[in-house]
Amino acid sequence: MRFKFPLMAIGLEGAMIVLFHLYVQYEKDQNISQQLNTTRPTKMDSFLPLYPLFQDVHVMIFVGFGFLMTFLKKYGFSSVGINLLIASLGLQWGTIAQGLLHSHGQKFHIGIKEMINADFSTASVLISFGAVLGKTSPIQMLIMTILEIAVFAGNEFLVGEIFMASDIGASMTIHAFGAYFGLAVAGVLYRSGLREGHKNEESVYHSDLFAMIGTLFLWIFWPSFNSAIAEPGDHQYRAIVNTYFSLAACALTAYAVSSLVMHRGKLEMVHIQNATLAGGVAVGTCADMDIQPYIAMIIGSTAGLISVLGYKFLTPFFASTLKIHDTCGVHNLHGLPGVIGGLASIVAIAVGVSNVSTVAMQAAALGSSIGTAIVGGLFTGLILKIPFWEQPLDQYCYDDSVYWEVPRWREHDFHFHEHEDHKQLELEA
Amino acid sequence: MRFKFPLMAIGLEGAMIVLFHLYVQYEKDQNISQQLNTTRPTKMDSFLPLYPLFQDVHVMIFVGFGFLMTFLKKYGFSSVGINLLIASLGLQWGTIAQGLLHSHGQKFHIGIKEMINADFSTASVLISFGAVLGKTSPIQMLIMTILEIAVFAGNEFLVGEIFMASDIGASMTIHAFGAYFGLAVAGVLYRSGLREGHKNEESVYHSDLFAMIGTLFLWIFWPSFNSAIAEPGDHQYRAIVNTYFSLAACALTAYAVSSLVMHRGKLEMVHIQNATLAGGVAVGTCADMDIQPYIAMIIGSTAGLISVLGYKFLTPFFASTLKIHDTCGVHNLHGLPGVIGGLASIVAIAVGVSNVSTVAMQAAALGSSIGTAIVGGLFTGLILKIPFWEQPLDQYCYDDSVYWEVPRWREHDFHFHEHEDHKQLELEA
Amino acid sequence: MRFKFPLMAIGLEGAMIVLFHLYVQYEKDQNISQQLNTTRPTKMDSFLPLYPLFQDVHVMIFVGFGFLMTFLKKYGFSSVGINLLIASLGLQWGTIAQGLLHSHGQKFHIGIKEMINADFSTASVLISFGAVLGKTSPIQMLIMTILEIAVFAGNEFLVGEIFMASDIGASMTIHAFGAYFGLAVAGVLYRSGLREGHKNEESVYHSDLFAMIGTLFLWIFWPSFNSAIAEPGDHQYRAIVNTYFSLAACALTAYAVSSLVMHRGKLEMVHIQNATLAGGVAVGTCADMDIQPYIAMIIGSTAGLISVLGYKFLTPFFASTLKIHDTCGVHNLHGLPGVIGGLASIVAIAVGVSNVSTVAMQAAALGSSIGTAIVGGLFTGLILKIPFWEQPLDQYCYDDSVYWEVPRWREHDFHFHEHEDHKQLELEA
Repeated sequence: MRFKFPLMAIGLEGAMIVLFHLYVQYEKDQNISQQLNTTRPTKMDSFLPLYPLFQDVHVMIFVGFGFLMTFLKKYGFSSVGINLLIASLGLQWGTIAQGLLHSHGQKFHIGIKEMINADFSTASVLISFGAVLGKTSPIQMLIMTILEIAVFAGNEFLVGEIFMASDIGASMTIHAFGAYFGLAVAGVLYRSGLREGHKNEESVYHSDLFAMIGTLFLWIFWPSFNSAIAEPGDHQYRAIVNTYFSLAACALTAYAVSSLVMHRGKLEMVHIQNATLAGGVAVGTCADMDIQPYIAMIIGSTAGLISVLGYKFLTPFFASTLKIHDTCGVHNLHGLPGVIGGLASIVAIAVGVSNVSTVAMQAAALGSSIGTAIVGGLFTGLILKIPFWEQPLDQYCYDDSVYWEVPRWREHDFHFHEHEDHKQLELEA
Repeated sequence: MRFKFPLMAIGLEGAMIVLFHLYVQYEKDQNISQQLNTTRPTKMDSFLPLYPLFQDVHVMIFVGFGFLMTFLKKYGFSSVGINLLIASLGLQWGTIAQGLLHSHGQKFHIGIKEMINADFSTASVLISFGAVLGKTSPIQMLIMTILEIAVFAGNEFLVGEIFMASDIGASMTIHAFGAYFGLAVAGVLYRSGLREGHKNEESVYHSDLFAMIGTLFLWIFWPSFNSAIAEPGDHQYRAIVNTYFSLAACALTAYAVSSLVMHRGKLEMVHIQNATLAGGVAVGTCADMDIQPYIAMIIGSTAGLISVLGYKFLTPFFASTLKIHDTCGVHNLHGLPGVIGGLASIVAIAVGVSNVSTVAMQAAALGSSIGTAIVGGLFTGLILKIPFWEQPLDQYCYDDSVYWEVPRWREHDFHFHEHEDHKQLELEA
Repeated sequence: MRFKFPLMAIGLEGAMIVLFHLYVQYEKDQNISQQLNTTRPTKMDSFLPLYPLFQDVHVMIFVGFGFLMTFLKKYGFSSVGINLLIASLGLQWGTIAQGLLHSHGQKFHIGIKEMINADFSTASVLISFGAVLGKTSPIQMLIMTILEIAVFAGNEFLVGEIFMASDIGASMTIHAFGAYFGLAVAGVLYRSGLREGHKNEESVYHSDLFAMIGTLFLWIFWPSFNSAIAEPGDHQYRAIVNTYFSLAACALTAYAVSSLVMHRGKLEMVHIQNATLAGGVAVGTCADMDIQPYIAMIIGSTAGLISVLGYKFLTPFFASTLKIHDTCGVHNLHGLPGVIGGLASIVAIAVGVSNVSTVAMQAAALGSSIGTAIVGGLFTGLILKIPFWEQPLDQYCYDDSVYWEVPRWREHDFHFHEHEDHKQLELEA
């Protein structure tokens, strides 16, 4: 970390400032509309009404994703801290990458949708971060942020502008994309030395509670995520309602299935922290369609079921047989539910619920999202594998103290013990 | 937990999906209003402006109530996790129960108020959950959710549609109702074996800090809770302002009284976590009335005073003499302040501050809320007492490990101790 | 704490209720506008659209500031708890102090801007609280709240009404003011007995994670803080956009500089928790001006750089040479970035970016904010030094147990150890 990380971070910030200078402008249509004395709604008029939804998404990105990953006992600083680092770079770079594509290389304006999309583009990187959590360095994550958002923006442009597919909650373009990108990177970076697991790859009691902060804020604000850039009126309304009920159905189902598959029927925190959210992912693509709430609930329940089964059976199989180690199980929370979301949209359009797109274009969008993710992820993995980026040694994985100044774990002498034995305990522990 | 819990949870989710299929429809008046080219405000027009208030309430239900109950040292997973379980089922069932009552059994539409009310109906169950926290099983909580929301919806219909009483912040219909329902259940489930207390019924340092997350989000968003379904304009405005100042006055008073009644004048975390919120409960019924901010502050201060005194003196009395053990002290946070709220509204109407209801109808609403709560709670308690619902044995109360896979409490070897004594400590602990 | 604290707290609450009775009234223009059948926008019309921004600020004040200060291992109850106490009193007193000044001693109305300003006025005290954290008593903080808000309101009136300077995000009037006020108090209360540090003035692993909750909510909602009272339309829009990108640039830079200045290139939690926020402070004064996003990013990066350097080099210098011990380093998070904000506004106006104010008036505002803060802080420090306010002895600093009933630190016997050694361990610890 001595110089590579700070120099790269400062260099990237400098580049962002130059790019913003060249390409980014304020919206100004409020002025124009006032001069013309017109009542035509302007982009500025929709800024403040959508701002609360932006802020909900903002909480999901920084608190939601950040704390969700704090479940590891010794990796909380990195989880919440590198999450902030990635997102800070990502929202600047995402603004540029998406803006330039949509403006065809011209200067472009920043409105509320551009800010929401900037946050969205970081979400895909944060999902991928979950797959490689504990096994990579901060500098590797800076590189991944730059590469992944470039590919993300390309795929998003392809899906939205070329295929003109519908993916309002981004089940395909963010969730499936982020998951398969991360799995591809994790596959390239596979560590055979950790085949038998790692002593730090586990939670402690309070780290699991910290993770629940992330889970709950993601769960609560997911309706805003799926509706933030939806068309105002019915579409946005349905995106909120469908997501709300999908998540409720998903959570109840995930509890049931967690108890069903676990030893002696006990609940497993990994499932509760993650699978309860799968309904928000899976309903994403169809969220604004006229599918009826009960169908949203069926989608949510299905996602909760599949997600828990994925954690129980697929993740170990991926690690042992496919040699893809997925730290947070992003395949179960984002990958499979994202695919479910894409498939659900194909069915919805096939049966005539919506005509905003065609079956072929939805299928192309799903294929493109997974395909570019895997290709982009493999390429990124190869770049990250170059032994120059301060990747941690196997024994230092899942350990903040490699990259952070770490204080003591806890306070030993909290209660002012007087007796002699105490000193001995202090020495021992 | 082997099969009863998962089968009941899946069965309930299936029932919810069927009920939603039969009865729940989207709002669609946006379309209609556009076709008619009218400027009459539609239900859809009020959706987005009220959505931030809905999300505030949503945070209160899932983060607020969930983390508030994490104060117990070994029961954090259940507190925040079963809270999510109850609320996920409750918001689906609350939608159905309240929707069917108000539509007289017809299909009904889901608007923002229905979503807010769905969250509200879960609040009553979460309050009752606080009274029996640590002494019940997840399956018992599913049953309580179904029964309590049915009774809640009935009482809410009675209060709002028959008595046409005013209870905008639901001091009576949610808070007093939830508290007395929970106390009745706790009374029926009383465990004489725990008369002398339980070694796990206490907090540790960090569990008290987790609980403060819940306290603060409840405190911050309470103005949204009390105003979310208020009439737009003056009423909604006053509900926000009165609650804001009532809470501030309540908090300052609660600190003072906590110090006054405690040993050597020290502050007690239980009071700070709970009694600081009593002002939000107590001002609820009058929140939208023209009572003036300083009266709201008097109501808040009174509630803070009464609530701390309740924790100090009433809760032990209830446990020892009335044989009602109230784990979270919901009587002091929701019961007494809820009654204060009802009484304040009677006074407000008697002195002519508001004419939205009559003294008699407000008194009937308060009586009905407490009466149906106690009867419903006793009945529910008897159902829950059936020795089939996996209720924990006395020695396993307040312990997550009965229903959850629980990781180690903390990391012993965080600082890479080298010396030999360390291994011994690891073995011991 | 026996009687002084509760009596003062109750007395202050009583005084607030009397003052509210005398001076505070509801807004009522909604009614008037309806009677006149006019479509002129009223103050009430802007209430609900601004309410989400108010709530964002509210979260910053209570969760943001509260949890940011929980980093100390044994001072979490006081950090989050006394934060709530100060803010509860402060928002009442701030309403009165600012209201009376702006109404010239007449009765005044409470609108959304008055509520936002009430929260703002508490922010200055909470910043100062950070400088004296761990070294003062709750009763001293009540006194500081009363005195500081009086001075704050005076300076804010001077800056806004007399100088008519522009300080939309309050870099000068809240952040620089709060920091220098706190430093002045800390200087007067300097404890030479703690010159060599204190064993409790350090974090543990989980206390640093609790603090990140505060950091993230402050970071996320800072655009709302800087825009909440901005002129609707372009100004408010730019305040949001500039703050958003300033913070992102600041965070990335702070990570880089933290790694650069620390031992072996590791990241330091104190920097991440605090310096990542400096961009929100520094862009404050210019936030609503037409400075272009890339300039906002340069301001943010500069603030991140200066802030980390301040933590690394200035704070130790202040403590050792100037005999000003700044517990949270508020000089680096609020003081220096606040001055940067003021200077940036002078430059912006000098080069013609904005003509809302003049260079002279901005300089006067900066000077007045720092000057009144230092004078007010010195005076307040002298009042607080009177040996009557239960200030903790040196050995009890940074320790909740002086003012709080504190539970055990952690659960020793979490896993039901059977073997004999266990009992011995329990005895020892």
